[in-house]
Amino acid sequence: MMADKRLTYASSGVRLESNTQFVNAIQAAMHSTYGPRVCSRNGGFAGLFRLDYDEQLFRRNYRRPLLVGCADGAGTKVLLAKQTGRLDTIGIDLVAMNVNDLITCGAEPLFFLDYLAIGTLDPAAMVTVVEGIAAGCKQADCALLGGETAEMPDLYRPGEFDLAGFSLGVVELHKAIDGRRISPGDAIIGLPSNGVHSNGYSLVRKVIAKRKLKLSAEIDELGETLSDALMRPTRIYVRPILQLLRAYKVKRVVTGMAHITGGGLPENVARALPPDCDAVLHRKRWTPPPVFSYLQRLGIAHAEMMRVFNMGIGFVVFVRPTFAEAAIRRLRRAGENPVRIGRVKRGSGQVTIK
Amino acid sequence: MMADKRLTYASSGVRLESNTQFVNAIQAAMHSTYGPRVCSRNGGFAGLFRLDYDEQLFRRNYRRPLLVGCADGAGTKVLLAKQTGRLDTIGIDLVAMNVNDLITCGAEPLFFLDYLAIGTLDPAAMVTVVEGIAAGCKQADCALLGGETAEMPDLYRPGEFDLAGFSLGVVELHKAIDGRRISPGDAIIGLPSNGVHSNGYSLVRKVIAKRKLKLSAEIDELGETLSDALMRPTRIYVRPILQLLRAYKVKRVVTGMAHITGGGLPENVARALPPDCDAVLHRKRWTPPPVFSYLQRLGIAHAEMMRVFNMGIGFVVFVRPTFAEAAIRRLRRAGENPVRIGRVKRGSGQVTIK
Repeated sequence: MMADKRLTYASSGVRLESNTQFVNAIQAAMHSTYGPRVCSRNGGFAGLFRLDYDEQLFRRNYRRPLLVGCADGAGTKVLLAKQTGRLDTIGIDLVAMNVNDLITCGAEPLFFLDYLAIGTLDPAAMVTVVEGIAAGCKQADCALLGGETAEMPDLYRPGEFDLAGFSLGVVELHKAIDGRRISPGDAIIGLPSNGVHSNGYSLVRKVIAKRKLKLSAEIDELGETLSDALMRPTRIYVRPILQLLRAYKVKRVVTGMAHITGGGLPENVARALPPDCDAVLHRKRWTPPPVFSYLQRLGIAHAEMMRVFNMGIGFVVFVRPTFAEAAIRRLRRAGENPVRIGRVKRGSGQVTIK
Repeated sequence: MMADKRLTYASSGVRLESNTQFVNAIQAAMHSTYGPRVCSRNGGFAGLFRLDYDEQLFRRNYRRPLLVGCADGAGTKVLLAKQTGRLDTIGIDLVAMNVNDLITCGAEPLFFLDYLAIGTLDPAAMVTVVEGIAAGCKQADCALLGGETAEMPDLYRPGEFDLAGFSLGVVELHKAIDGRRISPGDAIIGLPSNGVHSNGYSLVRKVIAKRKLKLSAEIDELGETLSDALMRPTRIYVRPILQLLRAYKVKRVVTGMAHITGGGLPENVARALPPDCDAVLHRKRWTPPPVFSYLQRLGIAHAEMMRVFNMGIGFVVFVRPTFAEAAIRRLRRAGENPVRIGRVKRGSGQVTIK
């Protein structure tokens, strides 16, 4: 399992050999995410996870289990994390990028594995990163089952690192959501983002460099520093979405979902649509966090903004029209602030934002 | 799913927008690995895989499924791949590093997801890499279900790339192998490696640079060029190992397994051992490929060689002594060249190589 794996790999870096603290800290972070389904195995090569609970009461959770896998990286937000020294939450971004994709099929996240590649290992810094990953896993109610830390000084510059991850989920076959049931009339409900999340950071960093912005400066318009606004970790939508899905055991009220990442609302909502439906969104229905108008005024065209950023909506749920109000109430009870942002109509897979 | 994901991410790199060829080529490589359990889903955010076959005959393959997850990277062999231009097989190395870990628990690999991070995308080169990953998946009888291609020019130098992956497998709970059943007297059977595989390349590259070796030079001692010897893809042990395990439906003949990676035989065999057993290996029983004596003569201490490289044994199987000969015959019939390299004795988790 990861901890052992890390130890093994660590031994190729001289400084690490004595650093059992690093391995112990990572092991503690991993164990903090373990539920009863994780089978711990000392000295192993892989992470083991029981699909069914062992208790008679819960056994056979899945009659026809469909496994769902996602791979994604944290993107160039890692460079901003290094620059600002904010290493504690970039792991939450990483988990979010993966599990928010996973739940679009209605899947329950089971476990996560990370890949952390670095130039030269600063053990304390990397423990902070892994603790962030564990924090993200807890928000997503999944186990950090393993991972790999690779020290590659010839590939990564000193202090720089890359972060990728893989999440595995499961959904009962007949409950899997794939967007094919989206129909004209369906309500489109948006769940707010809390800022830029983890996409568009190459553009963000370009603007910062061009305008010579100071990350630590307090920005009146934002009510916080630029670092605070830009490093805020991506929201994880696992709990409200699974609560919504579990509320309807027989009726299939949710017809589709989209995680709003690179490509923005237009591209990601389109990915969820069947070929004979259009989505019409009304952007007056929600107020994007101030960071977006701030970035736009620094010189990004509005069309580019829409295409690169989530613009305030991080996740989208398609719901049968007669259940829209009930779904919104349920999402509110789950702590969300859902907004009815649009409607599905007959069409050809297009997304219109009015 | 991956292809769509790649398209989405690709759109942040200007040159890529028109390059549907890249996406199509990757999609073709992925589809070539699909079996009947992959649920294709257009426009999706995740890859879907059915745990059970749909046919009545095969249904409920698993009564108490234990999911097994592994994450690993190709390591700095990617730098040598770039240097030699041998991009077609580094994907096989990547898959091998993961699935050879996975099968140590007795798990059947189900699917694989890759993470490919690059400075500036050269579509043709990266299609070659992904085709190698697909080739590795076919050798491992698993599906290339998805992945992520991230273009990050500020993190990776032009032409450089990193490659990581994640494999998911399944094993029936009561058939999972975790080394706890290894007992004194068990035979230790080694399966040959075909060279350096994917570990120790930082050391290999250091020696090459120090000795100013020409990678394209034909080396008499090796009977091939240094590139040929060093870029040979890692062997994938999935088929012979699963054939061996499936031959014993009731008896539990295999008590433990180890994939020999960084740390060499001493460290990896030790990882499989229970705390009350030692392993005694006899290194005269097999002949390492000539690349190892060649590297050693370039100035690597023997102890360092043992600690970094597989030294000719890529995978190790622990077998109940009365079944050792039968297991060796079965492995031979599966096309392997197994060697009885040692024996388990009472002890304290130590590995001795005589």
